[in-house]
Amino acid sequence: MNKEQLFENIKRKKSFLCVGLDTDIQKIPEHLLNEEDPIFAFNKAIIDATADLCIAYKPNLAFYESMGVKGWVSFEKTVKYIKENYPDQFIIADAKRGDIGNTSAMYARTFFQELDIDSVTVAPYMGEDSVTPFLTYEGKWVILLALTSNKGSHDFQLMKDEAGEQLFEKVLRKSQEWGDDQQMMYVVGATQGKAFEGIRQIVPNHFLLVPGVGAQGGSLEEVCKYGMNSTCGLIVNSSRGIIYVDKTEKFAEAARNAAKEVQAQMAEQLKVIL
Amino acid sequence: MNKEQLFENIKRKKSFLCVGLDTDIQKIPEHLLNEEDPIFAFNKAIIDATADLCIAYKPNLAFYESMGVKGWVSFEKTVKYIKENYPDQFIIADAKRGDIGNTSAMYARTFFQELDIDSVTVAPYMGEDSVTPFLTYEGKWVILLALTSNKGSHDFQLMKDEAGEQLFEKVLRKSQEWGDDQQMMYVVGATQGKAFEGIRQIVPNHFLLVPGVGAQGGSLEEVCKYGMNSTCGLIVNSSRGIIYVDKTEKFAEAARNAAKEVQAQMAEQLKVIL
Repeated sequence: MNKEQLFENIKRKKSFLCVGLDTDIQKIPEHLLNEEDPIFAFNKAIIDATADLCIAYKPNLAFYESMGVKGWVSFEKTVKYIKENYPDQFIIADAKRGDIGNTSAMYARTFFQELDIDSVTVAPYMGEDSVTPFLTYEGKWVILLALTSNKGSHDFQLMKDEAGEQLFEKVLRKSQEWGDDQQMMYVVGATQGKAFEGIRQIVPNHFLLVPGVGAQGGSLEEVCKYGMNSTCGLIVNSSRGIIYVDKTEKFAEAARNAAKEVQAQMAEQLKVIL
Repeated sequence: MNKEQLFENIKRKKSFLCVGLDTDIQKIPEHLLNEEDPIFAFNKAIIDATADLCIAYKPNLAFYESMGVKGWVSFEKTVKYIKENYPDQFIIADAKRGDIGNTSAMYARTFFQELDIDSVTVAPYMGEDSVTPFLTYEGKWVILLALTSNKGSHDFQLMKDEAGEQLFEKVLRKSQEWGDDQQMMYVVGATQGKAFEGIRQIVPNHFLLVPGVGAQGGSLEEVCKYGMNSTCGLIVNSSRGIIYVDKTEKFAEAARNAAKEVQAQMAEQLKVIL
Protein backbone atom coordinates (compact mmCIF):
# COMPACT_ATOMS: atom_id res chain seq x y z
CA MET A 1 0.00 0.00 0.00
CA ASN A 2 1.38 3.41 -0.86
CA LYS A 3 0.99 6.71 0.95
CA GLU A 4 -1.75 7.98 -1.36
CA GLN A 5 -3.86 4.85 -0.87
CA LEU A 6 -3.45 5.15 2.87
CA PHE A 7 -4.65 8.75 2.81
CA GLU A 8 -7.58 7.76 0.56
CA ASN A 9 -8.64 5.20 3.18
CA ILE A 10 -8.37 7.80 5.92
CA LYS A 11 -10.55 10.23 3.98
CA ARG A 12 -13.13 7.61 3.07
CA LYS A 13 -13.45 6.22 6.60
CA LYS A 14 -12.86 9.51 8.39
CA SER A 15 -10.54 7.60 10.64
CA PHE A 16 -6.84 7.18 11.24
CA LEU A 17 -7.33 4.54 13.90
CA CYS A 18 -5.14 1.49 14.18
CA VAL A 19 -6.45 -1.31 16.38
CA GLY A 20 -3.66 -3.01 18.27
CA LEU A 21 -4.14 -6.77 18.41
CA ASP A 22 -2.20 -7.36 21.63
CA THR A 23 -4.12 -10.56 22.19
CA ASP A 24 -3.33 -12.20 25.51
CA ILE A 25 -4.83 -15.59 26.32
CA GLN A 26 -5.07 -14.46 29.96
CA LYS A 27 -7.20 -11.44 29.08
CA ILE A 28 -9.71 -12.64 26.50
CA PRO A 29 -13.29 -13.62 27.45
CA GLU A 30 -13.46 -17.00 29.10
CA HIS A 31 -16.03 -18.51 26.76
CA LEU A 32 -13.51 -18.28 23.91
CA LEU A 33 -11.17 -20.70 25.62
CA ASN A 34 -13.36 -23.52 24.33
CA GLU A 35 -12.58 -22.56 20.75
CA GLU A 36 -9.99 -24.53 18.82
CA ASP A 37 -7.87 -21.39 18.43
CA PRO A 38 -9.03 -18.87 21.06
CA ILE A 39 -6.56 -16.18 20.01
CA PHE A 40 -7.69 -16.25 16.39
CA ALA A 41 -11.37 -16.47 17.40
CA PHE A 42 -10.92 -13.33 19.49
CA ASN A 43 -9.05 -11.49 16.73
CA LYS A 44 -11.60 -12.46 14.09
CA ALA A 45 -14.47 -11.13 16.20
CA ILE A 46 -12.62 -7.89 16.98
CA ILE A 47 -11.69 -7.40 13.32
CA ASP A 48 -15.21 -8.03 12.04
CA ALA A 49 -16.54 -5.57 14.62
CA THR A 50 -14.11 -2.75 13.88
CA ALA A 51 -12.92 -2.99 10.25
CA ASP A 52 -15.15 -0.20 8.95
CA LEU A 53 -13.95 2.14 11.71
CA CYS A 54 -10.19 1.75 11.41
CA ILE A 55 -7.58 1.82 8.69
CA ALA A 56 -4.94 -0.44 10.21
CA TYR A 57 -4.35 -3.43 12.47
CA LYS A 58 -1.22 -3.89 14.51
CA PRO A 59 -0.61 -7.33 15.98
CA ASN A 60 2.24 -7.14 18.49
CA LEU A 61 4.44 -10.17 17.91
CA ALA A 62 5.31 -10.55 21.59
CA PHE A 63 1.80 -11.67 22.39
CA TYR A 64 1.88 -14.38 19.73
CA GLU A 65 5.43 -15.54 20.39
CA SER A 66 4.56 -16.03 24.05
CA MET A 67 2.34 -18.90 22.90
CA GLY A 68 5.14 -20.57 20.96
CA VAL A 69 4.21 -22.50 17.82
CA LYS A 70 0.48 -22.16 18.50
CA GLY A 71 0.91 -18.40 18.71
CA TRP A 72 2.60 -18.24 15.32
CA VAL A 73 -0.29 -20.19 13.83
CA SER A 74 -2.77 -17.69 15.31
CA PHE A 75 -0.67 -14.79 14.02
CA GLU A 76 -0.48 -16.13 10.47
CA LYS A 77 -4.20 -16.93 10.45
CA THR A 78 -4.99 -13.41 11.65
CA VAL A 79 -2.89 -11.79 8.93
CA LYS A 80 -4.43 -14.02 6.28
CA TYR A 81 -7.94 -13.28 7.53
CA ILE A 82 -7.43 -9.52 7.33
CA LYS A 83 -5.87 -9.71 3.88
CA GLU A 84 -8.65 -11.87 2.47
CA ASN A 85 -11.61 -10.10 4.03
CA TYR A 86 -10.45 -6.51 4.48
CA PRO A 87 -7.76 -5.91 1.85
CA ASP A 88 -7.90 -2.14 2.41
CA GLN A 89 -6.41 -2.54 5.90
CA PHE A 90 -2.77 -1.55 6.47
CA ILE A 91 -1.14 -4.31 8.51
CA ILE A 92 1.66 -3.47 10.92
CA ALA A 93 3.77 -6.25 12.40
CA ASP A 94 4.82 -4.67 15.66
CA ALA A 95 8.02 -6.57 16.06
CA LYS A 96 10.62 -3.90 16.89
CA ARG A 97 13.25 -5.92 15.09
CA GLY A 98 16.75 -4.78 14.17
CA ASP A 99 19.92 -6.81 13.70
CA ILE A 100 23.04 -6.89 11.54
CA GLY A 101 22.44 -6.71 7.80
CA ASN A 102 22.13 -10.39 6.85
CA THR A 103 19.85 -11.03 9.82
CA SER A 104 17.62 -8.02 9.22
CA ALA A 105 17.32 -9.32 5.67
CA MET A 106 15.90 -12.56 7.08
CA TYR A 107 13.32 -10.66 9.13
CA ALA A 108 12.38 -8.59 6.07
CA ARG A 109 11.87 -11.75 4.05
CA THR A 110 9.62 -13.18 6.78
CA PHE A 111 7.34 -10.20 7.16
CA PHE A 112 7.27 -8.82 3.64
CA GLN A 113 7.73 -11.83 1.38
CA GLU A 114 6.40 -14.82 3.32
CA LEU A 115 3.58 -13.04 5.14
CA ASP A 116 3.05 -10.12 2.73
CA ILE A 117 2.51 -7.70 5.63
CA ASP A 118 2.57 -3.98 4.80
CA SER A 119 4.98 -2.76 7.46
CA VAL A 120 7.17 -3.73 10.37
CA THR A 121 8.39 -1.71 13.34
CA VAL A 122 12.19 -1.56 13.56
CA ALA A 123 14.51 -0.41 16.37
CA PRO A 124 17.24 2.00 15.21
CA TYR A 125 19.99 1.26 17.75
CA MET A 126 22.14 -0.77 15.34
CA GLY A 127 22.04 1.85 12.58
CA GLU A 128 21.85 1.89 8.81
CA ASP A 129 22.58 -1.68 7.79
CA SER A 130 20.05 -2.98 10.31
CA VAL A 131 17.30 -0.92 8.68
CA THR A 132 18.02 -0.81 4.95
CA PRO A 133 17.31 -4.52 4.24
CA PHE A 134 13.68 -3.71 5.07
CA LEU A 135 13.64 -0.92 2.49
CA THR A 136 14.19 -3.05 -0.59
CA TYR A 137 10.58 -4.24 -0.89
CA GLU A 138 8.34 -2.19 -3.18
CA GLY A 139 5.23 -0.89 -1.41
CA LYS A 140 6.41 -2.08 2.01
CA TRP A 141 7.18 0.16 4.97
CA VAL A 142 9.66 0.44 7.82
CA ILE A 143 8.23 2.09 10.92
CA LEU A 144 11.28 3.20 12.86
CA LEU A 145 11.19 3.80 16.60
CA ALA A 146 11.92 7.47 17.28
CA LEU A 147 10.36 8.76 20.50
CA THR A 148 8.42 6.01 22.22
CA SER A 149 5.48 6.30 24.62
CA ASN A 150 7.02 4.61 27.66
CA LYS A 151 8.78 6.06 30.68
CA GLY A 152 12.09 4.50 29.62
CA SER A 153 12.05 6.66 26.48
CA HIS A 154 13.77 9.28 28.65
CA ASP A 155 16.76 7.09 29.41
CA PHE A 156 18.50 7.31 26.04
CA GLN A 157 16.20 8.84 23.40
CA LEU A 158 16.47 12.33 24.89
CA MET A 159 20.26 12.26 25.15
CA LYS A 160 21.72 15.45 23.65
CA ASP A 161 24.88 15.60 21.60
CA GLU A 162 27.43 18.43 21.74
CA ALA A 163 25.34 20.47 19.28
CA GLY A 164 22.15 20.01 21.29
CA GLU A 165 20.57 17.44 18.99
CA GLN A 166 18.70 14.67 20.80
CA LEU A 167 19.10 10.99 19.93
CA PHE A 168 15.54 10.64 18.61
CA GLU A 169 16.05 13.74 16.44
CA LYS A 170 19.25 12.23 15.08
CA VAL A 171 17.30 9.06 14.25
CA LEU A 172 14.67 11.10 12.40
CA ARG A 173 17.24 13.10 10.48
CA LYS A 174 19.82 10.42 9.72
CA SER A 175 17.28 7.81 8.61
CA GLN A 176 16.02 10.11 5.87
CA GLU A 177 19.28 9.32 4.08
CA TRP A 178 18.12 5.67 3.90
CA GLY A 179 14.55 5.99 2.68
CA ASP A 180 11.82 8.52 2.01
CA ASP A 181 8.27 9.22 3.16
CA GLN A 182 6.91 6.60 0.76
CA GLN A 183 8.61 3.79 2.65
CA MET A 184 9.34 5.02 6.16
CA MET A 185 7.22 6.08 9.08
CA TYR A 186 8.23 6.81 12.67
CA VAL A 187 6.89 5.75 16.04
CA VAL A 188 6.17 8.76 18.24
CA GLY A 189 4.28 8.16 21.49
CA ALA A 190 1.10 10.12 22.14
CA THR A 191 2.43 10.73 25.64
CA GLN A 192 5.11 13.00 24.16
CA GLY A 193 2.60 15.84 23.56
CA LYS A 194 4.32 19.01 22.40
CA ALA A 195 7.36 17.13 21.08
CA PHE A 196 5.30 16.58 17.91
CA GLU A 197 5.86 20.24 17.03
CA GLY A 198 9.62 19.86 16.82
CA ILE A 199 9.30 16.47 15.15
CA ARG A 200 7.18 17.93 12.34
CA GLN A 201 10.02 20.35 11.60
CA ILE A 202 12.32 17.39 10.90
CA VAL A 203 9.80 15.10 9.20
CA PRO A 204 6.99 17.32 7.88
CA ASN A 205 5.62 14.80 5.38
CA HIS A 206 6.09 11.39 7.00
CA PHE A 207 3.36 9.34 8.55
CA LEU A 208 3.80 8.83 12.29
CA LEU A 209 2.55 5.75 14.12
CA VAL A 210 1.29 7.00 17.46
CA PRO A 211 0.79 4.55 20.33
CA GLY A 212 -0.10 5.65 23.84
CA VAL A 213 -3.59 7.13 23.40
CA GLY A 214 -5.94 5.53 25.93
CA ALA A 215 -4.45 3.17 28.51
CA GLN A 216 -1.10 4.97 28.45
CA GLY A 217 -2.68 8.43 28.90
CA GLY A 218 -1.86 10.35 25.69
CA SER A 219 -4.29 12.97 24.35
CA LEU A 220 -5.67 12.58 20.82
CA GLU A 221 -6.41 16.28 20.63
CA GLU A 222 -2.87 17.28 21.47
CA VAL A 223 -1.41 14.75 19.04
CA CYS A 224 -3.56 16.17 16.22
CA LYS A 225 -2.88 19.77 17.14
CA TYR A 226 0.89 19.36 16.91
CA GLY A 227 1.26 16.30 14.69
CA MET A 228 -1.30 16.36 11.88
CA ASN A 229 -0.15 17.42 8.41
CA SER A 230 -1.99 17.99 5.13
CA THR A 231 -2.27 14.27 4.38
CA CYS A 232 -3.16 13.51 8.00
CA GLY A 233 0.25 11.97 8.64
CA LEU A 234 -0.99 10.12 11.70
CA ILE A 235 -1.91 6.53 12.43
CA VAL A 236 -3.07 6.48 16.03
CA ASN A 237 -3.05 3.12 17.74
CA SER A 238 -5.25 1.92 20.55
CA SER A 239 -4.96 -1.60 21.90
CA ARG A 240 -6.20 -2.20 25.44
CA GLY A 241 -8.61 0.76 25.18
CA ILE A 242 -10.54 -1.06 22.45
CA ILE A 243 -10.04 -4.80 22.60
CA TYR A 244 -10.41 -5.33 26.36
CA VAL A 245 -13.23 -2.97 27.38
CA ASP A 246 -15.58 -5.88 28.01
CA LYS A 247 -14.92 -9.49 28.93
CA THR A 248 -18.39 -10.96 28.45
CA GLU A 249 -19.89 -12.50 25.32
CA LYS A 250 -20.54 -8.95 24.17
CA PHE A 251 -16.83 -8.11 23.96
CA ALA A 252 -16.88 -7.51 20.20
CA GLU A 253 -19.84 -5.16 20.38
CA ALA A 254 -18.13 -3.27 23.20
CA ALA A 255 -14.93 -3.05 21.15
CA ARG A 256 -16.97 -1.69 18.26
CA ASN A 257 -18.49 0.98 20.49
CA ALA A 258 -15.08 1.97 21.83
CA ALA A 259 -13.68 2.17 18.28
CA LYS A 260 -16.70 4.17 17.16
CA GLU A 261 -16.10 6.72 19.88
CA VAL A 262 -12.47 7.19 18.86
CA GLN A 263 -13.43 7.30 15.17
CA ALA A 264 -15.94 10.09 15.87
CA GLN A 265 -13.25 12.11 17.62
CA MET A 266 -10.95 11.51 14.66
CA ALA A 267 -13.61 12.61 12.15
CA GLU A 268 -13.83 15.84 14.12
CA GLN A 269 -10.06 16.37 14.03
CA LEU A 270 -9.91 15.59 10.31
CA LYS A 271 -12.20 18.53 9.53
CA VAL A 272 -9.16 20.76 9.85
CA ILE A 273 -7.60 19.28 6.72
CA LEU A 274 -10.50 17.82 4.71
CA MET B 1 23.00 -20.94 35.11
CA ASN B 2 24.94 -18.52 37.30
CA LYS B 3 28.21 -16.75 36.62
CA GLU B 4 30.28 -19.18 38.67
CA GLN B 5 28.90 -22.20 36.80
CA LEU B 6 29.62 -20.50 33.49
CA PHE B 7 33.23 -19.87 34.50
CA GLU B 8 33.54 -23.47 35.71
CA ASN B 9 32.46 -24.68 32.27
CA ILE B 10 34.97 -22.36 30.63
CA LYS B 11 37.80 -23.69 32.80
CA ARG B 12 36.82 -27.32 32.31
CA LYS B 13 36.49 -27.07 28.53
CA LYS B 14 39.22 -24.48 28.05
CA SER B 15 36.83 -22.71 25.78
CA PHE B 16 34.64 -19.64 25.78
CA LEU B 17 33.21 -20.39 22.36
CA CYS B 18 29.57 -19.87 21.51
CA VAL B 19 28.37 -21.51 18.32
CA GLY B 20 25.81 -19.36 16.52
CA LEU B 21 23.00 -21.43 15.09
CA ASP B 22 22.08 -19.06 12.26
CA THR B 23 20.56 -21.91 10.36
CA ASP B 24 19.38 -20.93 6.90
CA ILE B 25 17.52 -23.46 4.76
CA GLN B 26 19.24 -21.96 1.71
CA LYS B 27 22.70 -22.62 3.10
CA ILE B 28 22.57 -26.09 4.65
CA PRO B 29 23.84 -29.18 2.79
CA GLU B 30 21.43 -30.33 0.11
CA HIS B 31 21.11 -33.92 1.31
CA LEU B 32 19.43 -32.65 4.51
CA LEU B 33 16.51 -31.26 2.56
CA ASN B 34 15.09 -34.80 2.42
CA GLU B 35 14.81 -34.88 6.21
CA GLU B 36 11.45 -34.26 7.83
CA ASP B 37 12.86 -31.18 9.62
CA PRO B 38 16.04 -30.16 7.78
CA ILE B 39 16.76 -27.21 10.10
CA PHE B 40 16.65 -29.38 13.21
CA ALA B 41 18.58 -32.18 11.53
CA PHE B 42 21.34 -29.68 10.69
CA ASN B 43 21.38 -28.21 14.19
CA LYS B 44 21.44 -31.62 15.85
CA ALA B 45 24.44 -32.70 13.79
CA ILE B 46 26.29 -29.43 14.47
CA ILE B 47 25.53 -29.62 18.20
CA ASP B 48 26.65 -33.24 18.52
CA ALA B 49 29.85 -32.40 16.68
CA THR B 50 30.76 -29.32 18.74
CA ALA B 51 29.26 -29.62 22.24
CA ASP B 52 32.52 -30.63 23.96
CA LEU B 53 34.32 -27.68 22.36
CA CYS B 54 31.95 -24.83 23.22
CA ILE B 55 30.11 -23.55 26.26
CA ALA B 56 27.12 -21.87 24.60
CA TYR B 57 24.77 -22.02 21.64
CA LYS B 58 23.11 -18.98 20.18
CA PRO B 59 20.21 -19.55 17.82
CA ASN B 60 19.31 -16.29 16.09
CA LEU B 61 15.54 -16.06 16.04
CA ALA B 62 15.43 -14.30 12.67
CA PHE B 63 16.51 -17.46 10.91
CA TYR B 64 13.74 -19.51 12.51
CA GLU B 65 11.03 -16.88 12.17
CA SER B 66 11.76 -16.62 8.47
CA MET B 67 10.34 -20.16 8.18
CA GLY B 68 7.11 -19.24 9.96
CA VAL B 69 5.43 -21.91 12.06
CA LYS B 70 7.82 -24.61 10.84
CA GLY B 71 10.72 -22.46 11.97
CA TRP B 72 9.35 -22.11 15.48
CA VAL B 73 8.99 -25.86 15.69
CA SER B 74 12.64 -26.30 14.67
CA PHE B 75 13.70 -23.66 17.19
CA GLU B 76 11.85 -25.28 20.08
CA LYS B 77 13.14 -28.73 19.15
CA THR B 78 16.69 -27.37 19.04
CA VAL B 79 16.43 -25.79 22.47
CA LYS B 80 14.92 -28.96 23.93
CA TYR B 81 17.61 -31.12 22.34
CA ILE B 82 20.42 -29.02 23.85
CA LYS B 83 18.79 -28.96 27.28
CA GLU B 84 18.23 -32.72 27.36
CA ASN B 85 21.54 -33.83 25.94
CA TYR B 86 23.97 -31.09 26.91
CA PRO B 87 22.57 -29.43 30.04
CA ASP B 88 25.86 -27.66 30.73
CA GLN B 89 25.38 -25.46 27.65
CA PHE B 90 24.39 -21.83 28.12
CA ILE B 91 21.60 -21.06 25.62
CA ILE B 92 21.25 -17.58 24.19
CA ALA B 93 18.10 -16.61 22.30
CA ASP B 94 19.48 -13.96 19.99
CA ALA B 95 16.25 -12.04 19.58
CA LYS B 96 17.24 -8.40 20.18
CA ARG B 97 13.82 -7.74 21.68
CA GLY B 98 12.77 -4.61 23.57
CA ASP B 99 9.32 -3.08 23.91
CA ILE B 100 7.19 -1.23 26.48
CA GLY B 101 6.98 -2.88 29.89
CA ASN B 102 3.93 -5.13 29.51
CA THR B 103 5.16 -6.32 26.12
CA SER B 104 8.71 -7.00 27.26
CA ALA B 105 7.13 -9.00 30.06
CA MET B 106 5.47 -11.20 27.42
CA TYR B 107 8.79 -11.79 25.67
CA ALA B 108 10.43 -12.61 29.01
CA ARG B 109 7.71 -15.15 29.75
CA THR B 110 8.23 -16.76 26.34
CA PHE B 111 11.97 -17.17 26.53
CA PHE B 112 12.51 -17.76 30.25
CA GLN B 113 9.36 -19.48 31.44
CA GLU B 114 7.95 -21.32 28.42
CA LEU B 115 11.24 -22.24 26.79
CA ASP B 116 13.51 -22.14 29.87
CA ILE B 117 16.32 -20.54 27.87
CA ASP B 118 19.23 -19.04 29.85
CA SER B 119 19.43 -15.65 28.24
CA VAL B 120 18.03 -13.33 25.64
CA THR B 121 19.59 -10.42 23.77
CA VAL B 122 17.74 -7.13 24.31
CA ALA B 123 17.97 -3.75 22.53
CA PRO B 124 18.31 -0.78 24.90
CA TYR B 125 16.69 1.99 22.82
CA MET B 126 13.44 2.05 24.81
CA GLY B 127 15.16 2.27 28.20
CA GLU B 128 14.58 0.88 31.67
CA ASP B 129 11.04 -0.47 31.57
CA SER B 130 11.78 -2.33 28.33
CA VAL B 131 14.65 -4.20 30.01
CA THR B 132 13.67 -4.77 33.65
CA PRO B 133 10.84 -7.30 32.96
CA PHE B 134 13.58 -9.65 31.77
CA LEU B 135 15.45 -9.26 35.07
CA THR B 136 12.83 -10.79 37.33
CA TYR B 137 13.71 -14.40 36.54
CA GLU B 138 16.18 -16.08 38.90
CA GLY B 139 19.22 -17.46 37.12
CA LYS B 140 18.25 -15.92 33.78
CA TRP B 141 20.23 -13.30 31.90
CA VAL B 142 19.68 -10.19 29.81
CA ILE B 143 22.36 -9.59 27.23
CA LEU B 144 22.03 -5.93 26.36
CA LEU B 145 23.26 -4.50 23.06
CA ALA B 146 26.03 -2.01 23.76
CA LEU B 147 28.54 -1.65 20.94
CA THR B 148 27.60 -3.95 18.08
CA SER B 149 29.83 -5.45 15.40
CA ASN B 150 28.18 -3.98 12.32
CA LYS B 151 29.02 -0.86 10.32
CA GLY B 152 25.76 0.82 11.42
CA SER B 153 26.99 0.76 15.02
CA HIS B 154 28.68 4.08 14.18
CA ASP B 155 25.38 5.80 13.33
CA PHE B 156 24.03 6.23 16.85
CA GLN B 157 26.03 4.18 19.36
CA LEU B 158 29.04 6.47 19.15
CA MET B 159 27.01 9.67 19.58
CA LYS B 160 28.61 11.84 22.29
CA ASP B 161 26.69 13.86 24.85
CA GLU B 162 27.71 17.30 26.12
CA ALA B 163 30.03 15.69 28.68
CA GLY B 164 31.71 13.51 26.07
CA GLU B 165 30.01 10.27 27.06
CA GLN B 166 29.04 8.05 24.14
CA LEU B 167 25.62 6.42 23.82
CA PHE B 168 26.98 2.88 24.26
CA GLU B 169 28.88 4.01 27.37
CA LYS B 170 25.68 5.52 28.74
CA VAL B 171 23.93 2.18 28.10
CA LEU B 172 26.67 0.32 29.99
CA ARG B 173 26.60 2.74 32.91
CA LYS B 174 22.88 3.40 33.22
CA SER B 175 21.85 -0.26 32.93
CA GLN B 176 23.94 -1.14 35.98
CA GLU B 177 21.22 0.60 37.98
CA TRP B 178 18.78 -2.08 36.74
CA GLY B 179 20.71 -5.29 37.30
CA ASP B 180 24.14 -6.62 38.27
CA ASP B 181 26.81 -8.84 36.74
CA GLN B 182 24.92 -11.96 37.87
CA GLN B 183 22.05 -11.21 35.51
CA MET B 184 23.33 -8.90 32.79
CA MET B 185 25.87 -9.20 30.03
CA TYR B 186 26.60 -6.87 27.14
CA VAL B 187 27.06 -7.34 23.42
CA VAL B 188 30.33 -5.85 22.23
CA GLY B 189 31.42 -6.63 18.68
CA ALA B 190 34.85 -8.14 18.10
CA THR B 191 35.31 -5.62 15.32
CA GLN B 192 35.50 -2.85 17.93
CA GLY B 193 39.07 -3.84 18.95
CA LYS B 194 40.57 -1.34 21.36
CA ALA B 195 37.16 -0.12 22.56
CA PHE B 196 37.23 -3.11 24.92
CA GLU B 197 39.80 -1.28 27.04
CA GLY B 198 37.42 1.60 27.81
CA ILE B 199 34.49 -0.77 28.19
CA ARG B 200 36.32 -2.76 30.86
CA GLN B 201 36.67 0.43 32.88
CA ILE B 202 32.87 0.77 33.00
CA VAL B 203 31.99 -2.93 33.36
CA PRO B 204 35.08 -4.65 34.80
CA ASN B 205 33.25 -7.76 36.02
CA HIS B 206 30.49 -8.40 33.51
CA PHE B 207 30.52 -11.09 30.88
CA LEU B 208 30.55 -9.74 27.33
CA LEU B 209 29.00 -11.56 24.40
CA VAL B 210 31.31 -10.96 21.48
CA PRO B 211 30.09 -11.56 17.92
CA GLY B 212 32.10 -10.64 14.88
CA VAL B 213 35.10 -12.97 15.10
CA GLY B 214 35.48 -14.82 11.80
CA ALA B 215 33.24 -13.82 8.90
CA GLN B 216 32.95 -10.25 10.17
CA GLY B 217 36.71 -9.83 10.59
CA GLY B 218 37.28 -9.34 14.35
CA SER B 219 40.49 -10.59 15.97
CA LEU B 220 40.24 -13.07 18.87
CA GLU B 221 43.69 -12.06 20.11
CA GLU B 222 42.79 -8.40 20.33
CA VAL B 223 39.44 -9.14 22.03
CA CYS B 224 41.26 -11.18 24.69
CA LYS B 225 44.05 -8.68 25.14
CA TYR B 226 41.66 -5.83 25.93
CA GLY B 227 38.51 -7.63 27.06
CA MET B 228 39.41 -10.65 29.22
CA ASN B 229 39.05 -10.36 32.99
CA SER B 230 39.91 -12.68 35.89
CA THR B 231 36.83 -14.87 35.30
CA CYS B 232 37.33 -14.76 31.52
CA GLY B 233 34.35 -12.42 31.07
CA LEU B 234 34.05 -13.30 27.40
CA ILE B 235 31.70 -15.46 25.37
CA VAL B 236 32.94 -15.27 21.81
CA ASN B 237 30.47 -16.23 19.13
CA SER B 238 31.16 -17.68 15.73
CA SER B 239 28.35 -18.61 13.39
CA ARG B 240 29.17 -18.76 9.69
CA GLY B 241 32.84 -19.48 10.44
CA ILE B 242 31.85 -22.79 12.02
CA ILE B 243 28.52 -24.05 10.76
CA TYR B 244 28.96 -23.37 7.04
CA VAL B 245 32.59 -24.30 6.33
CA ASP B 246 31.54 -27.36 4.36
CA LYS B 247 28.37 -28.17 2.44
CA THR B 248 28.90 -31.86 1.76
CA GLU B 249 27.85 -34.83 3.88
CA LYS B 250 30.94 -34.12 5.97
CA PHE B 251 29.63 -30.74 7.13
CA ALA B 252 29.46 -31.73 10.82
CA GLU B 253 33.00 -33.06 10.86
CA ALA B 254 34.17 -29.85 9.18
CA ALA B 255 32.29 -27.77 11.75
CA ARG B 256 33.97 -29.76 14.50
CA ASN B 257 37.39 -29.07 13.00
CA ALA B 258 36.64 -25.37 12.73
CA ALA B 259 35.42 -25.28 16.34
CA LYS B 260 38.48 -27.24 17.45
CA GLU B 261 40.76 -24.69 15.88
CA VAL B 262 39.03 -21.80 17.66
CA GLN B 263 38.96 -23.75 20.94
CA ALA B 264 42.72 -24.34 20.73
CA GLN B 265 43.28 -20.60 20.27
CA MET B 266 41.03 -19.94 23.24
CA ALA B 267 42.88 -22.45 25.44
CA GLU B 268 46.04 -20.54 24.62
CA GLN B 269 44.47 -17.20 25.57
CA LEU B 270 43.06 -18.64 28.81
CA LYS B 271 46.58 -19.47 30.04
CA VAL B 272 46.86 -15.82 31.04
CA ILE B 273 44.23 -16.24 33.75
CA LEU B 274 44.19 -19.97 34.60
